Amino acid sequence: MGITIELFCQKAREEALINVAIWGATGYTGVELFRILTNHPEVKIRFVFSHTYSGESLSVIYPYLERFEPIALTNEEEFNRIRDKDFDVAFLALPAGVSAERTNLLIHSGKKVIDIGSDFRLKNLNDYKKWYNFEHMYPDLVSEAVYGIPELNRSEIKSARIVANPGCYPTSFLLGVAPILKNDLLEGNWLYVDSKSGTSGAGKKSSVDMSFSEMFENIRPYNVGKHRHIPEMEQEAGIMAKRLVKVAFTPQLAPISRGILTTIYAHLKEKVSVEDLYSMYGEFYKDSYFVRVLPVGSFPATKGVRGSNFCDIGLAIEDEVAIITTAIDNLVKGAGGQAVQNMNIMFGLKENLGLDIVPLYP
Amino acid sequence: MGITIELFCQKAREEALINVAIWGATGYTGVELFRILTNHPEVKIRFVFSHTYSGESLSVIYPYLERFEPIALTNEEEFNRIRDKDFDVAFLALPAGVSAERTNLLIHSGKKVIDIGSDFRLKNLNDYKKWYNFEHMYPDLVSEAVYGIPELNRSEIKSARIVANPGCYPTSFLLGVAPILKNDLLEGNWLYVDSKSGTSGAGKKSSVDMSFSEMFENIRPYNVGKHRHIPEMEQEAGIMAKRLVKVAFTPQLAPISRGILTTIYAHLKEKVSVEDLYSMYGEFYKDSYFVRVLPVGSFPATKGVRGSNFCDIGLAIEDEVAIITTAIDNLVKGAGGQAVQNMNIMFGLKENLGLDIVPLYP
Amino acid sequence: MGITIELFCQKAREEALINVAIWGATGYTGVELFRILTNHPEVKIRFVFSHTYSGESLSVIYPYLERFEPIALTNEEEFNRIRDKDFDVAFLALPAGVSAERTNLLIHSGKKVIDIGSDFRLKNLNDYKKWYNFEHMYPDLVSEAVYGIPELNRSEIKSARIVANPGCYPTSFLLGVAPILKNDLLEGNWLYVDSKSGTSGAGKKSSVDMSFSEMFENIRPYNVGKHRHIPEMEQEAGIMAKRLVKVAFTPQLAPISRGILTTIYAHLKEKVSVEDLYSMYGEFYKDSYFVRVLPVGSFPATKGVRGSNFCDIGLAIEDEVAIITTAIDNLVKGAGGQAVQNMNIMFGLKENLGLDIVPLYP
Amino acid sequence: MGITIELFCQKAREEALINVAIWGATGYTGVELFRILTNHPEVKIRFVFSHTYSGESLSVIYPYLERFEPIALTNEEEFNRIRDKDFDVAFLALPAGVSAERTNLLIHSGKKVIDIGSDFRLKNLNDYKKWYNFEHMYPDLVSEAVYGIPELNRSEIKSARIVANPGCYPTSFLLGVAPILKNDLLEGNWLYVDSKSGTSGAGKKSSVDMSFSEMFENIRPYNVGKHRHIPEMEQEAGIMAKRLVKVAFTPQLAPISRGILTTIYAHLKEKVSVEDLYSMYGEFYKDSYFVRVLPVGSFPATKGVRGSNFCDIGLAIEDEVAIITTAIDNLVKGAGGQAVQNMNIMFGLKENLGLDIVPLYP
Repeated sequence: MGITIELFCQKAREEALINVAIWGATGYTGVELFRILTNHPEVKIRFVFSHTYSGESLSVIYPYLERFEPIALTNEEEFNRIRDKDFDVAFLALPAGVSAERTNLLIHSGKKVIDIGSDFRLKNLNDYKKWYNFEHMYPDLVSEAVYGIPELNRSEIKSARIVANPGCYPTSFLLGVAPILKNDLLEGNWLYVDSKSGTSGAGKKSSVDMSFSEMFENIRPYNVGKHRHIPEMEQEAGIMAKRLVKVAFTPQLAPISRGILTTIYAHLKEKVSVEDLYSMYGEFYKDSYFVRVLPVGSFPATKGVRGSNFCDIGLAIEDEVAIITTAIDNLVKGAGGQAVQNMNIMFGLKENLGLDIVPLYP
Repeated sequence: MGITIELFCQKAREEALINVAIWGATGYTGVELFRILTNHPEVKIRFVFSHTYSGESLSVIYPYLERFEPIALTNEEEFNRIRDKDFDVAFLALPAGVSAERTNLLIHSGKKVIDIGSDFRLKNLNDYKKWYNFEHMYPDLVSEAVYGIPELNRSEIKSARIVANPGCYPTSFLLGVAPILKNDLLEGNWLYVDSKSGTSGAGKKSSVDMSFSEMFENIRPYNVGKHRHIPEMEQEAGIMAKRLVKVAFTPQLAPISRGILTTIYAHLKEKVSVEDLYSMYGEFYKDSYFVRVLPVGSFPATKGVRGSNFCDIGLAIEDEVAIITTAIDNLVKGAGGQAVQNMNIMFGLKENLGLDIVPLYP
Repeated sequence: MGITIELFCQKAREEALINVAIWGATGYTGVELFRILTNHPEVKIRFVFSHTYSGESLSVIYPYLERFEPIALTNEEEFNRIRDKDFDVAFLALPAGVSAERTNLLIHSGKKVIDIGSDFRLKNLNDYKKWYNFEHMYPDLVSEAVYGIPELNRSEIKSARIVANPGCYPTSFLLGVAPILKNDLLEGNWLYVDSKSGTSGAGKKSSVDMSFSEMFENIRPYNVGKHRHIPEMEQEAGIMAKRLVKVAFTPQLAPISRGILTTIYAHLKEKVSVEDLYSMYGEFYKDSYFVRVLPVGSFPATKGVRGSNFCDIGLAIEDEVAIITTAIDNLVKGAGGQAVQNMNIMFGLKENLGLDIVPLYP
Repeated sequence: MGITIELFCQKAREEALINVAIWGATGYTGVELFRILTNHPEVKIRFVFSHTYSGESLSVIYPYLERFEPIALTNEEEFNRIRDKDFDVAFLALPAGVSAERTNLLIHSGKKVIDIGSDFRLKNLNDYKKWYNFEHMYPDLVSEAVYGIPELNRSEIKSARIVANPGCYPTSFLLGVAPILKNDLLEGNWLYVDSKSGTSGAGKKSSVDMSFSEMFENIRPYNVGKHRHIPEMEQEAGIMAKRLVKVAFTPQLAPISRGILTTIYAHLKEKVSVEDLYSMYGEFYKDSYFVRVLPVGSFPATKGVRGSNFCDIGLAIEDEVAIITTAIDNLVKGAGGQAVQNMNIMFGLKENLGLDIVPLYP
């Protein structure tokens, strides 16, 4: 934090309420978390673990971070030495299966854990085998973990030791459909969900498919009807609806780096005017700072939330079909930002503390 | 055509089968038509009419066309002088309402007309008032006009005097859903249709909303549930299904210049395997050069059809829901290319003559 | 600032050191200034003037700003009522000629002025007529105004009443070439300067040329050798070199929304090793937080400074020619961010207070 | 060519003048060559060799090529069997060093060779070791090979057995600067050359640096002053100037897939008016179909040449400095298109036969 903390907020920082450790800081989610926490007045980043880059500093890997962190990336082997002290909460941005193990150790050392990966999102243990291809060894922790969409789950998050930070697609879907499901308005079992995502959702990696030349002037579906986020979406939608909900889901890559635009088609039990739909959504989210239900006739745009933790929502009706569109930044509300929002709630802070970021526009 | 025609194909050109006139050549659709016809071995472009740029040459307005056309843009006032002779077919890329009038005169002068605009797409005259805000004065011509998707309507097009060239969104939708509707597989009345379009679909115009700064890193819906292409989609889908079909439609602008990717969610009457669905589509399109049903597990991409007249189709099944994805270039198969394909059929030529363009990749 | 200020920093805000007024807040520079100042712990935005949108709130014009400002845009007619009280410094983002008048009134009301426009950048009054097409009526204010690149002019800025905030291209050029000019290393009079700018530099406007369809997959020069920033660049380079310096300058638009990459070719008086060049630059900027001289072999990228106030610099040598590349965000270090940096200095605050923004990556 | 050749031009194709073989058809240059040759009325593609994909068809690797080629990729082992017969000219898109060997065999089998790689561009054999890191074993062939920019070298190309197809950057540079060098107008030895290239120039490959997330909203220099094209540029510029010419060169990657925009700063021996400069360029290129000297005040844009073989040129003067800007499509005039232009000349055809492609716009 070096020069950064020699600022107005320095005093607060030294007495920071929350000492933080990050695992997996060199992926896009990791550095986004770093960006957000660097700006958080009650956080001190104490440890940053990296398997690959142990010993180096973040700014060697990411020159754009020069000026922002003096601390070196820490070898995980030091973990045992430090896990009993020195920090309050761990953010995990780790591969499937690895999070679960790490969480088990951390919880037994008295730490809180926010898992940005997928190891605690699904309640049915078999689903980990089916969708993520590993055997989950910690059923008790799965039971205990709270699914972390604050707007839907605030009180459970408050007292949670483990928060399962939701996937990016599920966040954009669940916030869009919650008022309809909780008000029992869905006819039948199906929701049709069409998402367009920026390429950063695929992570920092080298592949021909994700190269600029290939993704330029390109929109393309992938894993249609087979994406790992489907069971997560159906599970949480089912909990809200208190019955079976099925999701026909098409994820698509679009030539933007950040952002998800999701369109949801919901056949309603009865005809509802668009004005009534807006009232219902407005009421549902009236205490949710980060959900902005747009004025009638406006629709969300990925650009309008870029770099911020907002989820913008627009609504339309065709006869008995509601069309709900939502926009989030996949790396913020869809990953690191929501994780910090969860942290704020777990530690009794204001939900938007350090997260009140103006979208970067244009 | 100047230097261009001093080529291999020159002899053929001088004896060209088809003499062509274009109205509205200075919009994006017009210059795309120009690009395609310039490469067509049986066409001679005789007249290019422009209200705004009469007397100038296309390459003054579009410097990238330097080398390609010696002929000047013609004032429409000359129309009366020339309409009785000298050309065989007119392509109209004109505003709503203007096409209809022009077509009436042309038909009475014995010309064939391909209307790339919307004045002959809808069979119900009231729809022109409702969706396009003008009173249609030529009901007989509306009755006579043939809706021009060759893959669905080839034989009527063959003998047509007026072809209503389809809208870009309807083309991407109807080709995607035709096998399901014609095989009477749709459960209920609804289809959920999610389209992402390049900005050229909005035409060549100046507006803050369509500026680069605003559209960059942006995907955004517009006219949700209210787009003018909805009645066209419902009319033609209804004709194929022989009953009422409703379309819940979300058009979206994406940061590409060319291309439409459309996803269609169709609830089927019975469970169908993905292999059977592929067989059905393969059979349905086996004689259609420009429809490419991709191999199982592949999905279409806008980049894969850029600059070409292809419509690529991919298929997936989730339980009883079929997810069909299609990609076209909105300016080619969605406008000028399909118009030329219709022309080929109307004049008894091979359907892909002059249209056999390799997509521009990457 | 509404919900925003109910935060950690609220106490500070109520006792904010600096009360601010903004003219022209609805252009891209205006909203960028708004974004930065909203995050500044010692600033309270008191008035936001808009000719066009008086009475409305910013978030009606820019929905992405919902949650961030309760204050309405103020009619300029109220100016006379308030100009004697209630704020300390005015940021002007106004058309050429308008700034000068407004500044004259403000200075006589005891306010400090930071002109983000061009009305005080040029010392030769005739240049306003020649390059900006207006007669400047305030020669005394022109004499008094300080050219505001803090890294080159810090002490004069400290005591200035009027700061002429530099143009975006000149900022990227002058920071790149200063060490060479101040060390008298330039051979001859010429510098060759090649800049690539994002489209936001052209402002928020509707024009076919700046539309997405036209700028997509496009890089194009404009105003080659004739850009208004040339006299500004030559003036300030000449001051540093203490002799005539000529600039051959090519501005180019690139398909990005933010960012300028500038390459400077400087023929040196003597051969210098690349290592020595790096030492010289490192030494020159050792106290400049916002200038990051990259490691040998690294070159700046517009993405590496996106949304931040940094100017990144890379260096190379071919025989006696130095090639200097710089990257800035045109709306931050090239406009609103540098303006706030100047404000911090004028009010005795730390230079990076409220400006310590992590670049938005990827 | 399957369905393709059942067209108007079929007869011509069967009696095609030129039978062609392509090595390395699966890279971007290879498929671009394929796109162009598919449209060429006097060419039949007989063999397509691929080390990696022997036995497969191109459309399996590139689904967008479905419909266009029935012939399978051929194993190089078959080379010996076929090299004595069945084709007239080989296009090589192979790695450095491999071309040279292959060329040696082909020449001895009586074939003509167009090397799109770099193995015959440099006349000084030591340069291959220094810049491309291999020992060149065929000095006689290097001596014999003709550097293939038709606008500068037409008559030598006509009788060549081996054409060294120029690099993309050198093409954009040499066409821009030729009139100045041939008219002996350059003062001193230096030219300052600033190029911005699309990502396809880097080839089809997987790397984090070239991923969409990293290249998006990014312009960045690389290999500044050290690019392999520098010796090629200096060699050919020196030949035209008949003396030493030095090039200070900055290649930059821009977020487009196709296109190079090059700006050249040339200090002239004497002041020249911009009109005289235009006359000189107009005269110089008056017989060159593919070089379009734009009207005074217009500047080239990468979009204006997309997919075509044109090189557009714009000119400006600041005192005694000429600023020349050129735009080409790096895969066409910068690679495959120029190769076909060379082939046309070698076989006595019209230079633009099969190459008269309208740029894809917008």
